[in-house]
Amino acid sequence: MRMYDLIMKKRSGLELTKEELTYMVSEYTKGEIPDYQMASMLMAIYFQGMTDEETAILTDCMAHSGDMVDLSPIKGIKVDKHSTGGVGDKTTLIVTPIVAACGVKVAKMSGRGLGHTGGTVDKLESIPGFLTDIPEEKFFEIVNKVGVSVIGQTGNLAPADKKMYALRDVTATVESIPLIAASIMSKKLAAGSDCILLDVKTGSGAFMKTVEDSTELAKKMVAIGEHNNRRTVALITDMDSPLGNYIGNALEVKEAVMTLRGEGPKDLTEVCVELAANMMYIAEKGSLEECKEQVKEAIRSGKALEKLKEFIAAQGGDVSVIEDPANFEQAACHYEVKAEADGYINHINTEEIGIASMVLGAGRETKESIIDYSAGIFLEKKYGDVVKKGDVLGVLYTNNEASIESAARIFKKAYTIGETQPVYKPHIYARVEANKVTMF
Amino acid sequence: MRMYDLIMKKRSGLELTKEELTYMVSEYTKGEIPDYQMASMLMAIYFQGMTDEETAILTDCMAHSGDMVDLSPIKGIKVDKHSTGGVGDKTTLIVTPIVAACGVKVAKMSGRGLGHTGGTVDKLESIPGFLTDIPEEKFFEIVNKVGVSVIGQTGNLAPADKKMYALRDVTATVESIPLIAASIMSKKLAAGSDCILLDVKTGSGAFMKTVEDSTELAKKMVAIGEHNNRRTVALITDMDSPLGNYIGNALEVKEAVMTLRGEGPKDLTEVCVELAANMMYIAEKGSLEECKEQVKEAIRSGKALEKLKEFIAAQGGDVSVIEDPANFEQAACHYEVKAEADGYINHINTEEIGIASMVLGAGRETKESIIDYSAGIFLEKKYGDVVKKGDVLGVLYTNNEASIESAARIFKKAYTIGETQPVYKPHIYARVEANKVTMF
Repeated sequence: MRMYDLIMKKRSGLELTKEELTYMVSEYTKGEIPDYQMASMLMAIYFQGMTDEETAILTDCMAHSGDMVDLSPIKGIKVDKHSTGGVGDKTTLIVTPIVAACGVKVAKMSGRGLGHTGGTVDKLESIPGFLTDIPEEKFFEIVNKVGVSVIGQTGNLAPADKKMYALRDVTATVESIPLIAASIMSKKLAAGSDCILLDVKTGSGAFMKTVEDSTELAKKMVAIGEHNNRRTVALITDMDSPLGNYIGNALEVKEAVMTLRGEGPKDLTEVCVELAANMMYIAEKGSLEECKEQVKEAIRSGKALEKLKEFIAAQGGDVSVIEDPANFEQAACHYEVKAEADGYINHINTEEIGIASMVLGAGRETKESIIDYSAGIFLEKKYGDVVKKGDVLGVLYTNNEASIESAARIFKKAYTIGETQPVYKPHIYARVEANKVTMF
Repeated sequence: MRMYDLIMKKRSGLELTKEELTYMVSEYTKGEIPDYQMASMLMAIYFQGMTDEETAILTDCMAHSGDMVDLSPIKGIKVDKHSTGGVGDKTTLIVTPIVAACGVKVAKMSGRGLGHTGGTVDKLESIPGFLTDIPEEKFFEIVNKVGVSVIGQTGNLAPADKKMYALRDVTATVESIPLIAASIMSKKLAAGSDCILLDVKTGSGAFMKTVEDSTELAKKMVAIGEHNNRRTVALITDMDSPLGNYIGNALEVKEAVMTLRGEGPKDLTEVCVELAANMMYIAEKGSLEECKEQVKEAIRSGKALEKLKEFIAAQGGDVSVIEDPANFEQAACHYEVKAEADGYINHINTEEIGIASMVLGAGRETKESIIDYSAGIFLEKKYGDVVKKGDVLGVLYTNNEASIESAARIFKKAYTIGETQPVYKPHIYARVEANKVTMF
């Protein structure tokens, strides 16, 4: 087999076989196929696309290029969750204790944040004492006992994806739906859960800017999961505004606690209930309606919040900040950004809000940046809200006073105040199960 | 400027500017842009194409990546000729003495053959004593005195093309008309002639298999030439059958002499008269009709044949083989391939005939292969001819008896004998001048 012939085949719009994809991924990972041939293949895929079956096989090959996590020491059905990333997305902190409280096992590996998006591992590490780097046996033990554990990525998961992604990043081949889907799903397949719930974000703060593209990506990922015998469902949720009102690591833990107390903001609560219900649904805990009832009951009864405490304690975290988030170390500087006109919030450029938060110290500009856990933003006003000149739009928190001027400028520019009230936008757009797309 | 942005721009179907193309070609030639980025750019160009202006600028950048030959020591208008390559194409040996006899200067660099196609340099080197590697001053002197000189490629012409072609060859991006056109024309621009006559071959023995593709390529190349102030015309000529009846180096010199004596085969004579007339036309020697008359007269009068002798003598060649090609060293083995059925020659797979000739020793399988100048093929029967079972289809010549069995098998398989006479096919399909395509 020769890579040249595979490039030619894909260039002509033909489907690559399992043998061809296996050869391509394994030889590329080993360094036997040079970057320039893979670069031309990736550009050919960008233009010619891949069928669902082809993408599913590619993903499986990429998953098998490294370690495949064996979760069999954990009893019962294990459910994973993946978000394509956004601003203020603290849903993992909320939904994993909910479903664990309802008897569904979550053995999850999460990532760190980079650029305008945050990462669950950083948010958890804002809790004093919390360890995200624990041995595998301990990880399994916590899931078996508590029902949920979240750790940083360990082992050599999907090295083919790492290598291919690095190449796509410098050859303008990132924006290909089959390649994005394969990249995400290869790591999920390698991570070993039985079921996968995908939260595909859409809008100005998301990688996918339109509902159409997000739905396309969701369908592709669901097809990959199902083809590889993982029960997979996707929700398309809004990221045209930040999710909830808090952005920043400790601030997001605080909002997660509020939400588990039943006092969270409407958008965040709605998205979390839907995500948690779907995680239970794919773990075969009943119909979607039944699952939703169980989720609501877990919040109402306080069992979900108890589960969060239990999980955090199991990983060495200081539970006092969960009992009262006022116990978190507070940022030294607070700065209120005020509206300069009367009107309605017509748009919030969410990526820019994420960048403002990063500038304050809540995120990483490069992989080496150090995070200020208490830094971040409270959004007083959200999409559609009425404002008067002088009203507080948001509050900036940081320990680095010098960052405030720049962050405030970015923040202010991200808000568009118009004279008329904008149209209502849903928090959840659609749900994809098998090949069926249900609009909300 | 970043190569990443240029790839993205081309991927989106936009036109690259002069500054961008200059940056891309010069940085790639210097090794500052890695192969993997150029590979993805080339695949993006394959899918998105390039405008005529963009291709012309790219070609100019590629030409300027190395030496630009300065032909100013040669007086008058210099005309170059390029063939896209085929089997039995000895036209350079015929047309350059014709036009030189008519007062047009030809200072030509030619290549060697590889695979199924031959090269003019090899054909000339079959003449005992002939030198294709002569110093520049001597080259200029011969052109000034005789009117024509043909040498092997010297200097560092279009190194960007060399590097880009090598990459295209392993990344399945050869078949892009703008890239093919830029590759050919970059070397022609660097070679320094004022006018360029292009012979674009079409059919089973050519790189371009259809008249449509060949015309497309011809139009692109003519546009490149004109944009860079070189008067350029292209002819689309047939290569669905070998050109003439002889294939192989000394055998083709023999047929060139026959043609200059007015005793050449009809197809070869017709193509050569048209090529020569067009070379004179672009050198401003009159209308196309007038030029054609001068060409015919140069053959009739014997002046063209005299010019061939003069040119060969000037480069150290033994003129006795021109005076009587029987003076060429003859191949030790002759083998007649006979028809196995009655009928008409419906098709000759010309690439396969070229391969049979290579197997006999007349061509190179790899760059290192040694050529047997007396080896080759005489085609007794051509497209459309009537044959009876047992008739000689062709004669194989070689000094390597062991090659005959394999060559004969390939040769026989290349001939298709059908029951009905096939439709007439022209030897010349079209002529491209400026943006005007004239069908023959």
